[in-house]
Amino acid sequence: MMHKPAITQVAINDTIAKRWSGRAYNPEKMVSHDQLIALVEAARWAPSCFGDQPWRFIVCNKNTDAQSWQQGFSCLAESNQLWAKDAPLLLVVCTDNLFSHNLQANRWAQYDTGAASENLCLQASSMGLMAHQMGGFNATDARIAFAIPDQFTLMAIISIGYPADSASLTPDILSRETAARKRKPLNELIFASSWGRALE
Amino acid sequence: MMHKPAITQVAINDTIAKRWSGRAYNPEKMVSHDQLIALVEAARWAPSCFGDQPWRFIVCNKNTDAQSWQQGFSCLAESNQLWAKDAPLLLVVCTDNLFSHNLQANRWAQYDTGAASENLCLQASSMGLMAHQMGGFNATDARIAFAIPDQFTLMAIISIGYPADSASLTPDILSRETAARKRKPLNELIFASSWGRALE
Repeated sequence: MMHKPAITQVAINDTIAKRWSGRAYNPEKMVSHDQLIALVEAARWAPSCFGDQPWRFIVCNKNTDAQSWQQGFSCLAESNQLWAKDAPLLLVVCTDNLFSHNLQANRWAQYDTGAASENLCLQASSMGLMAHQMGGFNATDARIAFAIPDQFTLMAIISIGYPADSASLTPDILSRETAARKRKPLNELIFASSWGRALE
Repeated sequence: MMHKPAITQVAINDTIAKRWSGRAYNPEKMVSHDQLIALVEAARWAPSCFGDQPWRFIVCNKNTDAQSWQQGFSCLAESNQLWAKDAPLLLVVCTDNLFSHNLQANRWAQYDTGAASENLCLQASSMGLMAHQMGGFNATDARIAFAIPDQFTLMAIISIGYPADSASLTPDILSRETAARKRKPLNELIFASSWGRALE
């Protein structure tokens, strides 16, 4: 598999540095039940406003329920299907638009759900798995396929599995796979004391 | 300091398990410049839709710019000020509502920013620091104080610093500090194959 660790000014946590949204999955290697539980436990322990835990995950496991996996897969954009086809797990990520304690709008629902998904992706990485979040999917189709109530917004589908050698990819996907990871310069993202002021 | 690791069915990544939003900060111990860079690098390398990186962080450092720290502090809800007063760093978290590449609405902006903030909090944890995200702040005041453009939504203020002995807390805050961490049962958050179906 490819390794594309983050390039940082100072060393950062190894799991965070190594997490990377690759596309080459090993179709032969299953994710075990204990690994799946570790993934969702990591998500479960993310922080949230009022401890509301607005995130919900629907697990589609190719090895235990091929039909549900196919339903998830069919909701993906074609450009994602080309490589996600080999991932044994697809997780549909939803967020509760309302707080549980008062049914008022939760303006942190999506923000908190992003944190839970990131925990899950980091947990994948720390177990030698690879997670790749996709925004490219048909949310209307997925809502129907998985009977997701209107109170919940669909945010992403996450593919998870063991990474494979990138030689298994088509030339077009391979070029995306081998391209350097890019981030904006630190000073465009992080400011000191006031908007736009460089940190260093 | 207190340790309140997540209670999980199977072992999870140590940093994720140990991250916890405590309230007792050591007012004497500064966060170093290298630690600050590590925090923001961890956030910078979070994943995002189209690689847009919609997150922005404004760093208010009590030790290098007490005035900006005071500005951030004055935006916090009183219930948060009671304990956040000892945290040397306050970070204002914003998200860009529009994609950079086409200026269209980014429906993943808050979700992706939640991931970046979680990376930052985990990085804090892995360096022995404690990060605590707060939704309880006056976003209107903070927008004015830090000259944050309308295109950006204010999501949170994060306090960061070294943890202290919880004996430094007032009795009321201490009782929140020592209460058991709570999460919904796994089967309320994670479903198998379809909405509401238990995973196990």
